[in-house]
Amino acid sequence: MRRILVLCLFISGLALAQTEDEKRIRSIFDTALTDGMAYDWLNHLSNQIGGRLSGSVQAEMAVDYTKAQLDELGLDKVYLQPVMVPKWVRGVPEFAYMETSPGVTTNMNICALGGSIATPAVGIKANVVEVKGIEDLATLGEEKLSGKIVFFNRPMDAELINTFEAYSGCVDQRAVGASEASKYGAVGVIVRSMNLRLDDYPHTGNMRYGDEPINERIPAAAISTNGAELLSTTLQLNPDTKFYFKQNCKQFDDVKSFNVIGQITGSTRPEEIMVVGGHLDSWDLGDGSHDDGAGCVQSMDVLRLLRKSGYTPQRTIRVVLFMNEENGLRGGTEYAKVAMEKKEKHVFALESDSGGFTPRGFSFDCSDADFEKITSWKPLFEPYMIHSFTKGGSGADIGPLKKDGIVLSGLRPDSQRYFDHHHAANDTFEHVNKRELELGAGAMASLVYLFDKYGME
Amino acid sequence: MRRILVLCLFISGLALAQTEDEKRIRSIFDTALTDGMAYDWLNHLSNQIGGRLSGSVQAEMAVDYTKAQLDELGLDKVYLQPVMVPKWVRGVPEFAYMETSPGVTTNMNICALGGSIATPAVGIKANVVEVKGIEDLATLGEEKLSGKIVFFNRPMDAELINTFEAYSGCVDQRAVGASEASKYGAVGVIVRSMNLRLDDYPHTGNMRYGDEPINERIPAAAISTNGAELLSTTLQLNPDTKFYFKQNCKQFDDVKSFNVIGQITGSTRPEEIMVVGGHLDSWDLGDGSHDDGAGCVQSMDVLRLLRKSGYTPQRTIRVVLFMNEENGLRGGTEYAKVAMEKKEKHVFALESDSGGFTPRGFSFDCSDADFEKITSWKPLFEPYMIHSFTKGGSGADIGPLKKDGIVLSGLRPDSQRYFDHHHAANDTFEHVNKRELELGAGAMASLVYLFDKYGME
Repeated sequence: MRRILVLCLFISGLALAQTEDEKRIRSIFDTALTDGMAYDWLNHLSNQIGGRLSGSVQAEMAVDYTKAQLDELGLDKVYLQPVMVPKWVRGVPEFAYMETSPGVTTNMNICALGGSIATPAVGIKANVVEVKGIEDLATLGEEKLSGKIVFFNRPMDAELINTFEAYSGCVDQRAVGASEASKYGAVGVIVRSMNLRLDDYPHTGNMRYGDEPINERIPAAAISTNGAELLSTTLQLNPDTKFYFKQNCKQFDDVKSFNVIGQITGSTRPEEIMVVGGHLDSWDLGDGSHDDGAGCVQSMDVLRLLRKSGYTPQRTIRVVLFMNEENGLRGGTEYAKVAMEKKEKHVFALESDSGGFTPRGFSFDCSDADFEKITSWKPLFEPYMIHSFTKGGSGADIGPLKKDGIVLSGLRPDSQRYFDHHHAANDTFEHVNKRELELGAGAMASLVYLFDKYGME
Repeated sequence: MRRILVLCLFISGLALAQTEDEKRIRSIFDTALTDGMAYDWLNHLSNQIGGRLSGSVQAEMAVDYTKAQLDELGLDKVYLQPVMVPKWVRGVPEFAYMETSPGVTTNMNICALGGSIATPAVGIKANVVEVKGIEDLATLGEEKLSGKIVFFNRPMDAELINTFEAYSGCVDQRAVGASEASKYGAVGVIVRSMNLRLDDYPHTGNMRYGDEPINERIPAAAISTNGAELLSTTLQLNPDTKFYFKQNCKQFDDVKSFNVIGQITGSTRPEEIMVVGGHLDSWDLGDGSHDDGAGCVQSMDVLRLLRKSGYTPQRTIRVVLFMNEENGLRGGTEYAKVAMEKKEKHVFALESDSGGFTPRGFSFDCSDADFEKITSWKPLFEPYMIHSFTKGGSGADIGPLKKDGIVLSGLRPDSQRYFDHHHAANDTFEHVNKRELELGAGAMASLVYLFDKYGME
């Protein structure tokens, strides 16, 4: 009888806790949707500042602006963490055409890939060899590729429901296409944009030469998906079609920049640190609203939403706006390095870097036992149409924090439209829906709340 | 031992069936995403035809176009079902301003509500009384309302995650605001648009006078959410602010139109009919891409996707493109009436009329036992990020088919952006994402497949 009573008390205790969590999470979402700051902050970042490539004036304006906004929130601590970042500048104009017979040309939309060298000032004109991937290069060999422009044209796989998987399956063409093609004497590469939609926007993104000697490097540019289709068809009709492109980009010496950090110090376990963040830098073509202005302003609002809900965290919660995710990951690397030097104990890190779309769930990089515990919270998210808790990656910037005992997590918004905008001139504010952005902030704040309350012990 | 063997065979049979279903559904989604017709059809409906208000030339063009497209699919039967529909015409120009002092005016974006009468040719100018809902009218009474324009300004509730619930909580203002306000001597009504976002688009939609005598009816118009905020603030600063509006709309006699129907006749149970559909009419301000061009083209593609997957349905599958959902529901009513007269046995009906956004699930109007059986199929949808099976409504057009033994269902896409576009000039093709539309078609075809295969016996 006594045992039954204890059991009953235990069960009613559980039920009560559940109710408290439901109420807290309801209050967090209500505030996010009716009194959120994320959308206003994003409006400023996107429309008053714009694209924030590492080393640019805009990136420094974004550092100043977000620090000032965090200062206004009255957190326990707001500071800048210095970090040296690469400075690559696109230079304008970029220009390309295809030439089907001498003098008969069609202009094409291109953009230099991030990190690419310039073409010679007069541009490059050469015959084109279309390939479907890196592995085709060895088959064709130097005989077929020497002196040519290699056109990488393997599209993203439309059958994959998670578009990030389709991206992963293609992005090697952009990342290492130029360094691989130059081994066979190619003079330049053109890469089909990482975009599932057919449209006219070229999408930039990082590429790397590795330790290839500077005088052997060849320039690389992205072409829009419509452009890629047109070029491919034209090459079938006329294999002798030539491609011309000219770009004027340049790598400068590294410059000083900053991660922007704000902190609420934990009440009872201040030494245990939970990070929530996104990256403040973006590519230069659009205003970086989805990638990753959204993740920054959501992360900033997490601290504010928790405050507004009246919750006093046990652990220290830090918002970190990382600099230079796009072309160097220097901010994430530096943050983890300093944390290790200071022997800081990080227990949880959550990144939002998949766009400001309707949140569908979270992915977790953690032990099976921790994942099981976290999964027990899933019913608390279902009223907000957040159903998907999966094991998998988290975010590039928090990756360097990985070690035993830390839970890394990524917000997973609906991915269908992300690559319509990713790294392109149409990654702009008007493509972010206020409610979708706010639901993401609410979801993140709710997860941080539960982690702080229950921990992984 | 024998029993165990039988059990094992039974279980392995189930596992096999599961695998077959998984394969079939995978093939349906693959085809939807790589070889779907929905987006092309929608492009034509939206960009070559445009808004399709009942009784308009465009509505008839849409009947001809969709019938011709269904004919091309080589179905077993394609036909038009005649139905008389109301013909309301907006008339242009519509025009409004607020006047803070004589001659000092600010133009406002408005649109007549569907079914409203015109203003007098010179328009209406009157003082404005702002209310938060129908119930305020009785409190204010004739003394305060007589001779005034009533301004209904209760916003949609941003805290509701399902935006359709927020819509339901507000739409009485639009539907019966005018007929209720006229009882107290009001001369016109202005209704805040049913839109969660602050923007400049007025959203139309149906209103009704019921049996109110024609000479007592007063005109009604929608104002954009930004306009409503501005008017409300202005009234606080200056309660004597006047509002002027002029509209020229007119109700004509009913005209003949059609439901468009295509059918694959069942192989073994042809007498059991499954309907999949959307409504072909739309409001006139945009091109009706989300409401409900999307539902029509998805429904059309369901039959094609099932065919392409190599599946031979046991039951008869009928796509029905209903006419006149927006301002009369005559198509849905007629379809059900004819079905009853012909003693047709409908076992299932699925409607898509909530926009062409990423599908999140289905709602079902059916018995608990049927719902339990259907819910057992949910794991088959989870690879496609479709997680939400709920009991609830289905769709307006299939509602008249309701009776014991039929399962009614509605596709439930993500609802966050729907009311940004609903019934407004920005319900246009560029706001539909191809993949999101196609995923909806795949989800619908998969549900129809499972219902046909397993039934509810």
